[in-house]
Amino acid sequence: MNPSIPSTMQAVQLDQPNGKLTVRTVPVSHPQAGQVLIRMAAAPINPSDLGALMGYSYSGERTYPFTPGLEGSGRVVKAGRGLMGRLLNGRRVACAASIEGSGTWAEYLLTSAQSCIPLNRNVSLEQGAMALTNPLTALAIFEIAKRGRHRAMVSTAAASALGGMLLRIGKRRGIPIIHVVRRQEQVDLVRSRGAEYVLDSSQADFPQRLRRLAQSLQATLLLDAIGGSLTRTLAEAAPFGSTILMYSRLSQEDSVIDARSALVKHLHFEGWFLPNWIREKNLLQILQLARQVQALLGSDLQSSVHQRLPLSAAQQGLETYIHNLGAGKILLVANPQDVALEG
Amino acid sequence: MNPSIPSTMQAVQLDQPNGKLTVRTVPVSHPQAGQVLIRMAAAPINPSDLGALMGYSYSGERTYPFTPGLEGSGRVVKAGRGLMGRLLNGRRVACAASIEGSGTWAEYLLTSAQSCIPLNRNVSLEQGAMALTNPLTALAIFEIAKRGRHRAMVSTAAASALGGMLLRIGKRRGIPIIHVVRRQEQVDLVRSRGAEYVLDSSQADFPQRLRRLAQSLQATLLLDAIGGSLTRTLAEAAPFGSTILMYSRLSQEDSVIDARSALVKHLHFEGWFLPNWIREKNLLQILQLARQVQALLGSDLQSSVHQRLPLSAAQQGLETYIHNLGAGKILLVANPQDVALEG
Repeated sequence: MNPSIPSTMQAVQLDQPNGKLTVRTVPVSHPQAGQVLIRMAAAPINPSDLGALMGYSYSGERTYPFTPGLEGSGRVVKAGRGLMGRLLNGRRVACAASIEGSGTWAEYLLTSAQSCIPLNRNVSLEQGAMALTNPLTALAIFEIAKRGRHRAMVSTAAASALGGMLLRIGKRRGIPIIHVVRRQEQVDLVRSRGAEYVLDSSQADFPQRLRRLAQSLQATLLLDAIGGSLTRTLAEAAPFGSTILMYSRLSQEDSVIDARSALVKHLHFEGWFLPNWIREKNLLQILQLARQVQALLGSDLQSSVHQRLPLSAAQQGLETYIHNLGAGKILLVANPQDVALEG
Repeated sequence: MNPSIPSTMQAVQLDQPNGKLTVRTVPVSHPQAGQVLIRMAAAPINPSDLGALMGYSYSGERTYPFTPGLEGSGRVVKAGRGLMGRLLNGRRVACAASIEGSGTWAEYLLTSAQSCIPLNRNVSLEQGAMALTNPLTALAIFEIAKRGRHRAMVSTAAASALGGMLLRIGKRRGIPIIHVVRRQEQVDLVRSRGAEYVLDSSQADFPQRLRRLAQSLQATLLLDAIGGSLTRTLAEAAPFGSTILMYSRLSQEDSVIDARSALVKHLHFEGWFLPNWIREKNLLQILQLARQVQALLGSDLQSSVHQRLPLSAAQQGLETYIHNLGAGKILLVANPQDVALEG
């Protein structure tokens, strides 16, 4: 079942913050206790990758060069000591990078066994490659909405893959969503997906329209993927007692908050990060989530693929992605034959 | 018991944002249902008044001229219909302004009966004038600390009257507090009050020192009275999972937040405002708080008085206050004979 493991592989590498992506031949590492080695099939470019490419690290200082890529799919070809790794060995998995320097944009990924979920037979390696970041974030957001008894929400970066998932789940669960995008063509796109409330933040009257709509729908959960001055606009539109969930900062700018309106309106600004959320779950809850995600990957949690590219075209894929954030995912396909064999 | 009520009174007035305070003769209003008229004894200048003087309103648009002053003490001389007013009629009370345009810096205050608490015999009108804003905020903060199981906290504007109350309660309850002030002389002042951890935010190494101390004490409740860039510094120093309680913005600047560190560290920024907090209490809880405050007004919740001035010296008092925020309260004494009669 385990193909022989080569001593070297092709991997995308970044040499400096904001540098160009290049492909190099690098050694393949062997898994220690609790780790697994995965022969990668495919890996998407996600918004959360963009920060890493600018040099930001969620886990301390970056050392260069490193291999980017936060999630993907493939087959476990070797496991270090430990029960979880043994169970996963030989299986198709969705996986997340967890070891500094080892990313999913490579032929092999070294990661912790806990960062993988086994894929059901009916889930393709392509959809499996996008099974973690966006789908789990979408489920988490609806869990937060339910726990906080929010009756409606505001979604930003609403033309994104995650925005589409929120739209579909919101419709199914009867939770109205105000979708905020940045351009007229994205308004059209999101409307064509069936959205009722879509606002273009580049319009001069956007703050007033957002405020009116948020008040009338009582949209007390506001999802801030952007940061910068949009955080202030969201807070000003927010009804009394709202939560502004800060889960990304695509603007790469600091959020601005008027403490006066925050305190008078009893607003909560809550930083939210998927790995923290997962860490609070027990094994049973994680297995339930994995089941739930895979059941919905073909429908509510589906991601559309815009382009499939080999690792060597990573730089080109990145540029395409940045200029067409709403167009669908760019998938880097490390081992095309593995993906094709499934088709 | 009720002295006769004149048809006009002296009241401090503000004609425009950031304007000079002047004293004018204005009509005395009569209480409607649920309202009381209070013959004022004394009223402090608080940090929360400064925003109002700049034209900010917590309850919508300001109309000019208006009478500033958010809290004070006096005797209820007339009550509109309603049980609460009838119970208060003739009694000495601590009171808060609640009706747009009617403030405590005047000979008479028209306010809702619910904005008053009757004063015990052993509480002077002077201490009673400062019984609401700071003491209730201090008790609220320790309630929040207890509920959130915070083991230590960071206090900003720590040389203020509120800062002193937090220091004393913290010592009594064994909750370490890192006191942040803006000048060396305030460091000395707060140390002389018995504080162990005092940091001067004007020092170049302040962010590092705050971070080290906050991490080692696990100070996960950070009280932000300032806003502006200090919010970011607090967030960067905050341990994982911290709450930054935004309860004032003395800098008059928008808060700045790095959403990336907020999300990775699972930070909560919570707007907190005394009137909202009180509104969530039932009558029994409010009476308990009133008892608790009055029991501690002579000790932990005491405010020191720097100057006593007549209403006509309000402008001078304001300037003195702004330049000596740590020196003690400025009290505006509307009816000196009422205060003196007690002495």
